[in-house]
Amino acid sequence: MKTVSILGATGSIGTSTLDLVEREPDRFRVRALTANRDVAKLAAAAKRTRAEVAVVADESCLPALRDALAGSDIAVAGGRAAVIEAAARPVDWTMAAIVGCAGLEPVMASVAQGTTVVLANKEPLVSAGEVILAHAETHGATLLPCDSEHNAIFQCLAGQDMADVRRIILTASGGPFRTATLDAMRRVTPAQAVAHPNWSMGAKISVDSATMMNKGLELIEAARLFPIDPDRIEIVVHPQSVIHSLVEYRDGSTLAQLGPSDMRVPIAHCLAWPRRMATPMAPLDLIAIGRLEFEAPDPIRFPALALARAALDAGGARPAILNAANEVAVAAFLAGRIGFLEIAAIVSDTLERYDPPAPATLDAVLAIDAEARRQATAGLKDAAA
Amino acid sequence: MKTVSILGATGSIGTSTLDLVEREPDRFRVRALTANRDVAKLAAAAKRTRAEVAVVADESCLPALRDALAGSDIAVAGGRAAVIEAAARPVDWTMAAIVGCAGLEPVMASVAQGTTVVLANKEPLVSAGEVILAHAETHGATLLPCDSEHNAIFQCLAGQDMADVRRIILTASGGPFRTATLDAMRRVTPAQAVAHPNWSMGAKISVDSATMMNKGLELIEAARLFPIDPDRIEIVVHPQSVIHSLVEYRDGSTLAQLGPSDMRVPIAHCLAWPRRMATPMAPLDLIAIGRLEFEAPDPIRFPALALARAALDAGGARPAILNAANEVAVAAFLAGRIGFLEIAAIVSDTLERYDPPAPATLDAVLAIDAEARRQATAGLKDAAA
Repeated sequence: MKTVSILGATGSIGTSTLDLVEREPDRFRVRALTANRDVAKLAAAAKRTRAEVAVVADESCLPALRDALAGSDIAVAGGRAAVIEAAARPVDWTMAAIVGCAGLEPVMASVAQGTTVVLANKEPLVSAGEVILAHAETHGATLLPCDSEHNAIFQCLAGQDMADVRRIILTASGGPFRTATLDAMRRVTPAQAVAHPNWSMGAKISVDSATMMNKGLELIEAARLFPIDPDRIEIVVHPQSVIHSLVEYRDGSTLAQLGPSDMRVPIAHCLAWPRRMATPMAPLDLIAIGRLEFEAPDPIRFPALALARAALDAGGARPAILNAANEVAVAAFLAGRIGFLEIAAIVSDTLERYDPPAPATLDAVLAIDAEARRQATAGLKDAAA
Repeated sequence: MKTVSILGATGSIGTSTLDLVEREPDRFRVRALTANRDVAKLAAAAKRTRAEVAVVADESCLPALRDALAGSDIAVAGGRAAVIEAAARPVDWTMAAIVGCAGLEPVMASVAQGTTVVLANKEPLVSAGEVILAHAETHGATLLPCDSEHNAIFQCLAGQDMADVRRIILTASGGPFRTATLDAMRRVTPAQAVAHPNWSMGAKISVDSATMMNKGLELIEAARLFPIDPDRIEIVVHPQSVIHSLVEYRDGSTLAQLGPSDMRVPIAHCLAWPRRMATPMAPLDLIAIGRLEFEAPDPIRFPALALARAALDAGGARPAILNAANEVAVAAFLAGRIGFLEIAAIVSDTLERYDPPAPATLDAVLAIDAEARRQATAGLKDAAA
C-alpha cells in the first residue's frame, strides 16, 4: 500500500493522477489533496478517494469546502500555509503539480520528507533547480520527472550509468507554427497559439509550445535532472510527438521512449516505479502512425530556444528570470496586450536589464522571481507605449 | 580484465568482435580463436591479439596454420573436436559466431562453463533452443543476444520486469523486394536477392532477409530468449532499419533501441555489458535521416513469416525442420537450381512431409536436422523434375 498526496489535484496533471490512483484502490491510499480554488472538484475527489485532508489554497474558498465536505471525516484547511502543511504530511509519494512559483514552497516541504516527489511542473526546477536538488540530497528524497520528455529520458536511463551517456535528445513537436512564416507568426491570435497539434494542455504551456519556450524550459529542466554537460543535450523537432525523447550511449546505441500523448503514461510510470502498472492506453500502432519525422528547430522563428540555452549556460539567476519574464509575457499575449513574437522579445529585454547574483536560498529565488516579473511588466508598458 | 574467446573469428561477426576487442587491449585478453578454413586471417588475428590458441575446423588446413604461427607461442589445433575443446577452455566471455548447425556443439561446450556466451547466429536457438536454454540453466550460464533485433529487445528490457511487458515488436527492413510485385519476385536472381538495402551480410542471411525468413527465424529466436507468449511478439516492417526493435509495457510506454546498421553496436553492448564501451560510431543524426516509416508485412509475398510462426506455435521439431529445409532451399536458390519463390515452397513441403517427435537432446536435434536436409534435398529433385 503506497500512500499518496496530490498537490494541485484539480488541474490536468492532478486529474490524470487521480484517474490512475482510483483504478487501483488496493494499491494506493490518498493522504492530502490540494487545489487552488476549484472547491467542487476538490471535494468530489476527496470523497471518492476518502482522502485524509483536502486543502484549498485560496482561503476565501475554505467555507465552501467545509460545506461540501460536511458530514465526511475528511479534514479541511485553507490558505498557502495549509498547502505547505499538507505537503509536509508524511506520505510515500507526492505529485507536485501546482502551477508556477506557487508550487515552490510546497515542493520543498514534500522533499523534506525524504520520500518520492514527482515534479510535474517545470518552474521549480528551472527557477530553483540547484536549491531543490541540494534539499533533496540533504533529505534523501527521490525526485521523479513526470514531464513526458524527462520521464522518457529517465526510462531510457534505467539500469544505465550516466558516464556511458553520449547525448540526450529532447524531442519537440514544433507546436502549431512549426511550418508558419515569420510574417504569419506576427499576426497569431491567442486562440491559434493555444491549439496544440498533439497535446491537450493548459493555455500557458500551450503558448510555450507555440513559441518553443516550453522546450527551452525543458532543456534547463533536463540539465538539472540529469548530470551531463548541457552541450550534450540536443533538441530535435519531431512533429508526431510519438518519440518523447532519446538517450544515446557511447557505444552507438540510442534508447527511445515512445507513447501516446497522454500524461497518464508518464504519471503511471512515476506511480508504479520501479515497477509498472496497467493503464487504459491503446497499443502503440506504428503501422497506423506510418511515419515519424525529424527536423532541426528554426532558431530565427523560435528565438526562445537560444534564450533558454544562454540562460542555462550562464546559470545563477538567469533561468529564474527567463521563466518569470516568460510567464508575464505569455499572460500579456493571452490578454491581447502584446503580439506573439513580442513574447520572446520581452523575455530577452528582461534578461538584458536585470542581472542579479545567483540565489542561494528559496527566498532569494522568490525575490528574483518577483523582481523579474516587475521588470517584465514594466517592459510590457514600454512595448505598448 | 575480461578473457574472451571467439568461435568463428574470421567471419563478419568475428571480425567485428576482434575490431572492438583490439581497441581495448587493457580490457580484453583473447584466449581461443577458431575459424573454418581461413588460415591466413585466423593466424593474423591470433598474432595481433596474442591469442592462447588458434583452431581451424577443417583439419586439412592445420599444417598451413602451424606454418603461419611457427615461432609464436600460440598453440594450434585442427578438426571439429578441437573447436569444441577450444570452446570448453575457461573464459569469461565467448562470442559464438559459427555459422549453421556446426555451431551447436561448440555453443553447448561454451555454455557448460557457466560464464557469458553471446549468440550471434540464429540456428542454435531456432533448432535447439529448448536444449540450449536448459543447458544454460543447469550450468548457470548467461546468454546474451547479439542479433541486432534481439540485442535491441534486451536493451529495452534493462531494469524491467518481464511481467510488465505487453508486447515485443520486432522490426524488419522488408529486404530488397519490399515493394516488388509477386511476378517480379518470381524472376529474382541470386545477385538481386543478396543486395540488402541496409546491412552488409553474408549471402545466406541476405537471401533470408529477401524472403523475410530471417525475420521468421528471429521471431522463433525471440520467443526462446524472452519468456513471453509468442502471440505477443509482432513484426513491423521499418525500411530504414534505424529502430532495431521495441518493447511495449503495460502502462503504455514503449522503449526502442536505435542505431546504425553496424554489428559492432550490439557486439559492443554484449562485450561491455552491463556497462558500455566506446565504439567509433557517428552520432545518430535523426535530422539527416528525416523520417522513419512503418508498414505491415505482406503475408502473400512473404509466406516465410507464416511458416515460421506456425513452426513456433507447434514447437517440438518444427523450428529445426524449418531452419534445415530453409538452408537447403537457399543454397539451391544461390546455386541457380530453384526460383526465389520456391524457397518457401520447399520449406513448406518439407514441413508437411516430415513430422518427427520433439527432440530432447542435442543428438536428436542433429538427427532431425540431417533428416530434414535429406527430405528438403529430395524435394528439390521433385521441384526440378
